[in-house]
Amino acid sequence: MTGYALDRAVRPVARTEPGRFAVELDDAWRALRGVVNGGYSTAVCLRALLEVVGAPDPLIVSTTFLRSAVPGPAEVVVEEVGRTRRNVTAQARLVQDGIEVVRTLATCTNLGEPGPVDAQSTAPRLPDPADCVDPYADPHLLDLLTGATMTDRIHVRHPALPGWVRGAPTGRTEAEFWIAFADRRPPDTLALPLLVDAAAPIVLEAGATGSSTLQLTTHVRARPAAGWLAARVSTRHPAGGLHEEDMDLWDSTGRLVAQSRQLAVLHASPGCARPRP
Amino acid sequence: MTGYALDRAVRPVARTEPGRFAVELDDAWRALRGVVNGGYSTAVCLRALLEVVGAPDPLIVSTTFLRSAVPGPAEVVVEEVGRTRRNVTAQARLVQDGIEVVRTLATCTNLGEPGPVDAQSTAPRLPDPADCVDPYADPHLLDLLTGATMTDRIHVRHPALPGWVRGAPTGRTEAEFWIAFADRRPPDTLALPLLVDAAAPIVLEAGATGSSTLQLTTHVRARPAAGWLAARVSTRHPAGGLHEEDMDLWDSTGRLVAQSRQLAVLHASPGCARPRP
Repeated sequence: MTGYALDRAVRPVARTEPGRFAVELDDAWRALRGVVNGGYSTAVCLRALLEVVGAPDPLIVSTTFLRSAVPGPAEVVVEEVGRTRRNVTAQARLVQDGIEVVRTLATCTNLGEPGPVDAQSTAPRLPDPADCVDPYADPHLLDLLTGATMTDRIHVRHPALPGWVRGAPTGRTEAEFWIAFADRRPPDTLALPLLVDAAAPIVLEAGATGSSTLQLTTHVRARPAAGWLAARVSTRHPAGGLHEEDMDLWDSTGRLVAQSRQLAVLHASPGCARPRP
Repeated sequence: MTGYALDRAVRPVARTEPGRFAVELDDAWRALRGVVNGGYSTAVCLRALLEVVGAPDPLIVSTTFLRSAVPGPAEVVVEEVGRTRRNVTAQARLVQDGIEVVRTLATCTNLGEPGPVDAQSTAPRLPDPADCVDPYADPHLLDLLTGATMTDRIHVRHPALPGWVRGAPTGRTEAEFWIAFADRRPPDTLALPLLVDAAAPIVLEAGATGSSTLQLTTHVRARPAAGWLAARVSTRHPAGGLHEEDMDLWDSTGRLVAQSRQLAVLHASPGCARPRP
């Protein structure tokens, strides 16, 4: 998959020595407030890491965000950490101006082709994407999304316009929606750790103005089929200025393909509504 | 807290050079099938790491289990990874016989003293621990618990005897129960990343015979008050020979103090019951 925006944006510019890659952080994967999206920096690390370890699929991807990455040149330094019969674990450090900004530890494997979908799947039941709404097209969001270039790369479709988009956060920090690449790139196991972090944080429904991820861990559970992914996201415990966010992704056959959890710093306006449990 | 079993078992034997510690993995923290408990190895790493970084509390603790650790001598090697105004991130590697067996990455902070408990707390409503049952005292478990020395260190109290203990797994992979140290050591933020991994895996209720953790991430959300902790555990997606396990812990005041998620390899007997979603 070489012609898609994501693949161009994560491919190393050069391998400078074994385990060392020159990369270019793309300006087109900025999230709210213009920061480089954490899922995207994870994908940049993971792309180099998979090349070094020689395994096809990430299984567990855990990223710590040390400082804000900025678009432009960077380096990814990969080291193998351990290898068993089935899995190989390695670490990738994203370095800018000599300072480590992101560290990803990934355990990789060969997931193989998926078997039959579990009949007990608890995938979200959503209307067809064509019958859903695109929140990013809403004129209310023009100001909020300024600088969030990523909305041109990632499409989401909601069953109804979210409260935060209408300027009326519901206080309900759970949601189900569709997500896909704008250029119809089929999802794969490299993309899943990005996609779990590619939608607006659900704490916006609690009146938060944003969220900065400290750490993001994704379990990749299967290779996804082509098509839209169904997402279920929730934040249950905003407290002490922090919140977790859990996301599950199912593919178009109803298979669970990824589960993620992150801990993030809550950006709240003074009149912030309280989330409901 | 120096007189308690956990503190004796995680304290480094010696600091051999800056960031390097000789440790002794205690025989008394073995889990099912006699393996060294992953929460315990995490606590050994974390204890050394906190000493190096000079912060009082872990905030995010993410451990990758590369190989089985065995009781006896080992080394912990700690390196600082990054520091911001509020947090410091470091990595601890547990090495045995020259081979890295466990890697913990922790972001540490000063959580301060907790404020008022959120009135919206969703803590489990459990009968008083004195009115609950101790599953480990059940004679059915004598064989299964052989070698699991940790049951002398950690007490659990369930509202009713779990199905798996009675030899009749219920298929329901969710539970709520109390957990505490046997020697009444008060829980603290060092102990929480151990306690989330200190009970029998809930997949036993699906007929599994055990579970080997690949990766465990804990968010420490507040300093716990003294007393029993209430645990809520669930596994929603056993598939492909793997399962996640989520655990939330609340302290005796009803405050959420930790959230963990792990990915583990499922050990299943051929006639394994299917978990219910």
